[in-house]
Amino acid sequence: MPIESIFATPLIDHHCHGVSPAELDWTQFQALFSESYRPPPPGTNEFQKPLGLAIRAFCAPVLDLEPHVSGEAYVERRLRLGAAEVNRRLMRASGLDCLIVDTGHRSNAIHTFEETGDLAGRPAHEVVRIEAILEEVAASGVSAEGFAKAFTDRLTERARDAVGLKSIVAYRCTFAIPQTAPTAADVATAAGAWLKQARTEGKYRVTDPTIIRHGLWVGAEICRARKFPMQLHVGFGDPDISMHACDPTHFTAFIAEMEKWEVPITLLHNWPFLKEAQWLSEIFQNVYYDAGVILNYGAAESERILREALQVGKFQKFLYSSDAFGLSELYYLGALLFRRALRRILDGWIADGYCSAKDADEMVELVALANSRRIYPGIKEAQ
Amino acid sequence: MPIESIFATPLIDHHCHGVSPAELDWTQFQALFSESYRPPPPGTNEFQKPLGLAIRAFCAPVLDLEPHVSGEAYVERRLRLGAAEVNRRLMRASGLDCLIVDTGHRSNAIHTFEETGDLAGRPAHEVVRIEAILEEVAASGVSAEGFAKAFTDRLTERARDAVGLKSIVAYRCTFAIPQTAPTAADVATAAGAWLKQARTEGKYRVTDPTIIRHGLWVGAEICRARKFPMQLHVGFGDPDISMHACDPTHFTAFIAEMEKWEVPITLLHNWPFLKEAQWLSEIFQNVYYDAGVILNYGAAESERILREALQVGKFQKFLYSSDAFGLSELYYLGALLFRRALRRILDGWIADGYCSAKDADEMVELVALANSRRIYPGIKEAQ
Amino acid sequence: MPIESIFATPLIDHHCHGVSPAELDWTQFQALFSESYRPPPPGTNEFQKPLGLAIRAFCAPVLDLEPHVSGEAYVERRLRLGAAEVNRRLMRASGLDCLIVDTGHRSNAIHTFEETGDLAGRPAHEVVRIEAILEEVAASGVSAEGFAKAFTDRLTERARDAVGLKSIVAYRCTFAIPQTAPTAADVATAAGAWLKQARTEGKYRVTDPTIIRHGLWVGAEICRARKFPMQLHVGFGDPDISMHACDPTHFTAFIAEMEKWEVPITLLHNWPFLKEAQWLSEIFQNVYYDAGVILNYGAAESERILREALQVGKFQKFLYSSDAFGLSELYYLGALLFRRALRRILDGWIADGYCSAKDADEMVELVALANSRRIYPGIKEAQ
Repeated sequence: MPIESIFATPLIDHHCHGVSPAELDWTQFQALFSESYRPPPPGTNEFQKPLGLAIRAFCAPVLDLEPHVSGEAYVERRLRLGAAEVNRRLMRASGLDCLIVDTGHRSNAIHTFEETGDLAGRPAHEVVRIEAILEEVAASGVSAEGFAKAFTDRLTERARDAVGLKSIVAYRCTFAIPQTAPTAADVATAAGAWLKQARTEGKYRVTDPTIIRHGLWVGAEICRARKFPMQLHVGFGDPDISMHACDPTHFTAFIAEMEKWEVPITLLHNWPFLKEAQWLSEIFQNVYYDAGVILNYGAAESERILREALQVGKFQKFLYSSDAFGLSELYYLGALLFRRALRRILDGWIADGYCSAKDADEMVELVALANSRRIYPGIKEAQ
Repeated sequence: MPIESIFATPLIDHHCHGVSPAELDWTQFQALFSESYRPPPPGTNEFQKPLGLAIRAFCAPVLDLEPHVSGEAYVERRLRLGAAEVNRRLMRASGLDCLIVDTGHRSNAIHTFEETGDLAGRPAHEVVRIEAILEEVAASGVSAEGFAKAFTDRLTERARDAVGLKSIVAYRCTFAIPQTAPTAADVATAAGAWLKQARTEGKYRVTDPTIIRHGLWVGAEICRARKFPMQLHVGFGDPDISMHACDPTHFTAFIAEMEKWEVPITLLHNWPFLKEAQWLSEIFQNVYYDAGVILNYGAAESERILREALQVGKFQKFLYSSDAFGLSELYYLGALLFRRALRRILDGWIADGYCSAKDADEMVELVALANSRRIYPGIKEAQ
Repeated sequence: MPIESIFATPLIDHHCHGVSPAELDWTQFQALFSESYRPPPPGTNEFQKPLGLAIRAFCAPVLDLEPHVSGEAYVERRLRLGAAEVNRRLMRASGLDCLIVDTGHRSNAIHTFEETGDLAGRPAHEVVRIEAILEEVAASGVSAEGFAKAFTDRLTERARDAVGLKSIVAYRCTFAIPQTAPTAADVATAAGAWLKQARTEGKYRVTDPTIIRHGLWVGAEICRARKFPMQLHVGFGDPDISMHACDPTHFTAFIAEMEKWEVPITLLHNWPFLKEAQWLSEIFQNVYYDAGVILNYGAAESERILREALQVGKFQKFLYSSDAFGLSELYYLGALLFRRALRRILDGWIADGYCSAKDADEMVELVALANSRRIYPGIKEAQ
């Protein structure tokens, strides 16, 4: 059964976050597998969705429980074992080659990327989030005139040991914005307005499209020089998203410019725009994509979601990611559901005569390892 | 086989309309299972689509015919049995717990909601359509200045015995509109323009976004006070729809405000925005959704449509509805196709280890009964 | 097994282009099954996607190779046999009734429509592309004032022996444009600006919405008079597309006008808007649709794509097309994948009781032949 290669091949998780070290109670645990700002309605809980079923079905045995134990029993067992042991077990069981970690989201609540790698017993690499650096620089006391240069300097410095950059422009101002680089004067004006407001409010959250476009274009220069990717968040996320304007085909002009610069763009998540992301991977040489986070949320339907993600897409452009944040369950499930789904899909393709077992093995190698190695030069082949 | 619970559990049809008492000929019968203003092209008929196949396959035996009889034979038999007998048979066979009926659409062509319930032998409850009341008040001879108060009074009165309100804002001006409450002055101005035009034309059809926003916000106050849902039409419908602007994520601002007010929003139909509706159910505590009407139109592919509807959605947020109007066939098929599809999906989830049979039974209980009972306090548990 | 009718029934390919007579090397062959302006990234190739697998799996045996031979071996064999023999084999094996050929795209690189038909041993008919005629007339030296009439005369003349017209308005200015007929003055002004720029640049590429709307409405008059269809490109295509604005529901106003004129509109390709296209086929008497090109690109997932295309759509409105251009492989695969997918879907519908075998045969007859014969009066029943 050559298609067993899916389970024998370690995965590069090209987009994830850090693991939480906290001992999580019933409410805290649920909050970490929800995209909502609020708890579920009274009388209900987060286990009442596909992802909740999958935690009970597949993570429970890793914690020595029967599959399908109640959510309450699961959380109780998790507390009894302790977060350190739970995280070690689930991360080791994920079968990863290495982790590429976005360090720009609630980093004070989670392990560092190196610690997260250690839990998995595998190397971890950093991706720097452009918006986090914009906010860090804004909060540093810089002047409006000095903002652009201070940001460039700081991003360049922070990117030194990174393997890529990431932008959440889709979250902060959608993709339906002008996509050219702003002028220096425009950046200074926008920075002035933002800094004034932020200092009044004491809150440095960047949403101004001019500032973010500046971040993107400075980031693009770094990606070009370093020959590494810019990751773009697409689609699924928390209530900050204006979903209809997060269709990545709104960002075609920027992506096309990056093609000229030979900067790989990796489109993250993409649900519900999986078809659009595939089309972009077909038409632009520099576009890569994954189905991160949504295989976890889809769980029992993850095979069908992955089928949609592979419908017309280029295998040499598709990447694995979990987009896990906080819960080690999400790294483990991400890898498990991806492998289960891909095995079923490829077994079916072979049975129906669309490809050979050897073809299937080559596709596994591409999506598990080779594609990420090709575009992230900073990750070394791990032992 | 615990999953047989799907067929043993009565369904709350949380969104439907009244049944037609008319004796329907070949042309009239077809018109009631089409969303078109025109008949199908010469040489074709409405049976040449999935819904037409399903009527011939599954409704025919209820009328003592062989499955797959011709459309002509079906209509002939229907006329011979008489509408009263056909409606009684199909409604009784639907296995409903109770019906929640929108009384605001072509109500003079159909049975009242009480009569529709009687045909099914089950209780029926009313949902009041905001736009119908706006039009009723406009046609009553009210002045532009008096419109706002007259509407509030009338909607409050009409809502007294209702279990929820409904808006078809997506039909009348799309979701891509400002979503704040309009000022009293703006409402009076808009009412003046509308009433003038309507009195000239003798046609009181509301399409003005200011008037409809007024209706929504007055309705929202009532929903908040009464602690019952506001239903919103989404997606699939007749040629009045500008589909691209009926993506419910255009209405995020209003939905988010209703979350603060703790007003449940039930998104109806949702095709082709089933993914978007699920995402809204994930991120907003107050969002519920269904896949009404489209399982009927999808018929042979209803299992795949329901799979898409359940891909990442919260089971404690998903509701059953038929969205049936006029034909008792549509209530029967709605319930049958929903049960068939859900059984296949849950059987598969159990077989693949994603959930236990007990989990599946609990999901059936939630979507069939418990979710609607939780959010519609006006429906009493029926005997 | 009546459902074998799918393989026994010849297909009308209602939308394709001409076959390339060239001897294609490794690079040239790949370029003809890609929508990109650039080659795939270094170290990868176009065979690493579903369509590449399908060529190796299903076209290889027609060239006397084993299924799943390497892409390199396939191209080598293709060169050894020679394009003429390869094209003859693949086109004959496609099992077509007749071909309806768009002659407006890179026509100097491919066989004429008559030659393409001859390769298949079947009749071929022409569809004239409106934008190609706009550009031909612009390049003829006409004045701005004379443009409108010269275009009308030329399109009328070119349409004389055609069986339909086609527009690629979605490519050139998206569907999100005004949809009324422009005034003569507006056309003259727009023609003046375009002609001036085109003569300066020596490049006659039409993108001005006013000019294209003029082309559409003149074309519509011809379609009305001749009682034949206007084809509209929708969705999937090369980097010229702004995908989010190619949702055909943006073009509802024009389509609704054409319904009044009784002009059939055939929506081509439609991916990722297959659901939207089906909805338009449900609500408008004059709307037809296909899933051309995307079954080829989807290949191993073509069954699921066709399922989505048939989810709620009217069988009497669905057409077969390959959208093949250049490679005879694409005509052959288009027909093969369509037949394989449709057989699986209909076999499943029969097994699940949704339709009878006789129903399935009738659906095959409709989508393979009868629907195209009904709306393209210029195609005669072939021997």
